[in-house]
Amino acid sequence: MQKIHIENSAMLPAGFRSAGLRCGLKKREHHDISMVVSDTPATVAGVFTTNQVKAATVRLCQSRLKRSSSRGLVVNSGNANACTGEQGRINAERMASCCSEALGGSGEEFMVCSTGHIGMQLPMDLIEPGISRLAGQLAEGDATSAAEGIMTTDTHPKFGSVQLMLGGKPVRITGMAKGAGMIEPNMATMLSFLFTDAAVDQAALQTCLRKAVDRSFNRITVDGDQSTNDTVLFFANGQADNEVLLPGHPDWELFCEAVWSITFRLAMMIVRDGEGASKLVTIRVEGARSDHEADAGARAVANSLLVKTSWAGRFAIWGRVMDSIGYSDCFIDEEKTDIDYDDVAAVRGGLHTGVSAEALSEVIARDAFTIRVNLHVGSGSAEVYTCEISQDYVKINVV
Amino acid sequence: MQKIHIENSAMLPAGFRSAGLRCGLKKREHHDISMVVSDTPATVAGVFTTNQVKAATVRLCQSRLKRSSSRGLVVNSGNANACTGEQGRINAERMASCCSEALGGSGEEFMVCSTGHIGMQLPMDLIEPGISRLAGQLAEGDATSAAEGIMTTDTHPKFGSVQLMLGGKPVRITGMAKGAGMIEPNMATMLSFLFTDAAVDQAALQTCLRKAVDRSFNRITVDGDQSTNDTVLFFANGQADNEVLLPGHPDWELFCEAVWSITFRLAMMIVRDGEGASKLVTIRVEGARSDHEADAGARAVANSLLVKTSWAGRFAIWGRVMDSIGYSDCFIDEEKTDIDYDDVAAVRGGLHTGVSAEALSEVIARDAFTIRVNLHVGSGSAEVYTCEISQDYVKINVV
Repeated sequence: MQKIHIENSAMLPAGFRSAGLRCGLKKREHHDISMVVSDTPATVAGVFTTNQVKAATVRLCQSRLKRSSSRGLVVNSGNANACTGEQGRINAERMASCCSEALGGSGEEFMVCSTGHIGMQLPMDLIEPGISRLAGQLAEGDATSAAEGIMTTDTHPKFGSVQLMLGGKPVRITGMAKGAGMIEPNMATMLSFLFTDAAVDQAALQTCLRKAVDRSFNRITVDGDQSTNDTVLFFANGQADNEVLLPGHPDWELFCEAVWSITFRLAMMIVRDGEGASKLVTIRVEGARSDHEADAGARAVANSLLVKTSWAGRFAIWGRVMDSIGYSDCFIDEEKTDIDYDDVAAVRGGLHTGVSAEALSEVIARDAFTIRVNLHVGSGSAEVYTCEISQDYVKINVV
Repeated sequence: MQKIHIENSAMLPAGFRSAGLRCGLKKREHHDISMVVSDTPATVAGVFTTNQVKAATVRLCQSRLKRSSSRGLVVNSGNANACTGEQGRINAERMASCCSEALGGSGEEFMVCSTGHIGMQLPMDLIEPGISRLAGQLAEGDATSAAEGIMTTDTHPKFGSVQLMLGGKPVRITGMAKGAGMIEPNMATMLSFLFTDAAVDQAALQTCLRKAVDRSFNRITVDGDQSTNDTVLFFANGQADNEVLLPGHPDWELFCEAVWSITFRLAMMIVRDGEGASKLVTIRVEGARSDHEADAGARAVANSLLVKTSWAGRFAIWGRVMDSIGYSDCFIDEEKTDIDYDDVAAVRGGLHTGVSAEALSEVIARDAFTIRVNLHVGSGSAEVYTCEISQDYVKINVV
């Protein structure tokens, strides 16, 4: 199989153009609206928040996903267009119509996403001219400006790109994402958009995206909160002129692996950019009665406020790890449990190994480390990726 | 029914004696070990953590609850005697034996509790002489010193007392508690001990305590973490010489109401003393499809880090309340939902009422306020009590 090399690049695939700019939704001088469009109709797939309270834009995208193709999307940050009722729905549709007015075609061919504060109507007097300006600035190639326009509390834009040869044709897959706090199992305040010039069957594209999301964005947690707006969209415009990809095609697995690689990279960038966070912590639970229980145990550790605050400090406090698995839905037999911090054995058979506090402190001082819990009661395993909770997290969210 | 007046007092009922002192388990010059004993064997009831990882002392108390009576208890703070294996079990039993060596009788007649750090063996060379000294200092009346000996990050001792006339006999019920962080549904790092000189049937005492705990300690949450050590014990020594209380007795409901009143007072004191917290926030969800769903919704709000940090700030951010119910197991129809902050209507039919941010800010600046969510989809309701998460919470737990 070809080696998948992810470039630190926002270079768009052939036939896509993008723009990002400031239309005035945020107080600060930041980009707050972005557009990415395909010159030709693209196959589109999507994965959305499971929150019962959904932004108007999420409902719009979900309904438009039933269409076979899309021309692209417009995204604003600074205002979530959530809890905005009928007016919110009208505004979301209006954003799409503004796209078609500027670019031709029908408004229904455009997807719309929003992220930011909940419960306020969008200032359409700023957004409508913003979309017109975006349409005039669309350009091929680098989409960094668009990646900046979707940021909220992110400290930097997040993107990645892969080039592959599929059946002798060069193909590119490029992704961008935003998300910092409110990130949690099942994709919290997180937007991610993927673009490829490969030709991909629609149902296959959806399957590929779903699997990639389950193994990336759905395995990260910053604060355990789930948003009303989470959306991942994947556009495939077929400009690479390859044979249409779908399961069974010789290049299918390679393509899916490349898509997952990008989503995983973006997911790790989101955790590392967690509000007030500086560490990437992997929680691996193994030896559980089932993968499902391992997942429950790993998430309990990753979401425990006491565990997460301990990582911001000097001491590992492994007792808080035992405690949080103990109250999770994961079966634990205390006396069989082993815990390791990277290469340092902290607990064997439920008891402290006697390793020094300093040796454990040295591990949690690293900017990336793994806590491995072996329950020794079965063969189930799961990994979750998270970060510490620092005083800065609270400072950012106490507004 | 007699009026239940809770005194801000740690006055013990007749026939109980207590002591609290420092034996050296903590770095700071604080009491760290306490004892409360009854002159005559007392009926005893208990409610314990549901965490699968249980301290040695919890297992000891659970097993001794099967006996019909107890002489009292010894409690240390600063070390949880959890995740300590066989040596932990031996040490817990040794603490009880030290009580009987000093006071007569059998070690099995004494309950033992511990709270503090997990994973270290108890320094028995400090504890054993500590228990001897406690036995020599036992005194009737005020138990403030014992209430101080069970504190960990608590900023003050917590107690309350009630006097009642039952069948013409004066009866007293007195409770004490500790708990600050790691407090959560199903009683996290929390100890509470209740004492009465009433004569109460053992099974009835257990029922009374279970119901009181479900309506008090099990309705509070500070950080959503559950401890390995939570224990509530209730001793009834019958010195008041009243007719034995049990369901059906004319004074039964009054007695249970008084017990609940004390546990509720102690629970509210715990929330108000939450680590770094200064506010008592009541989350009331009503109009849910069931009480069970209302409870799930209220707990999701009360445990949302984004909701809790917002209370430490200037803005109410009701969108985070909608969001957290949305991802809970409580059914919500966004467009039917109303939210009030005390007397200020924030949301009607899922939409902002237009009330000013200042009016909502004024409510969350109060030292106690209620967020009432009416889902308008049924008649289920629940209340949960919690506090804000401030930078101080993180500071306390980042050690």
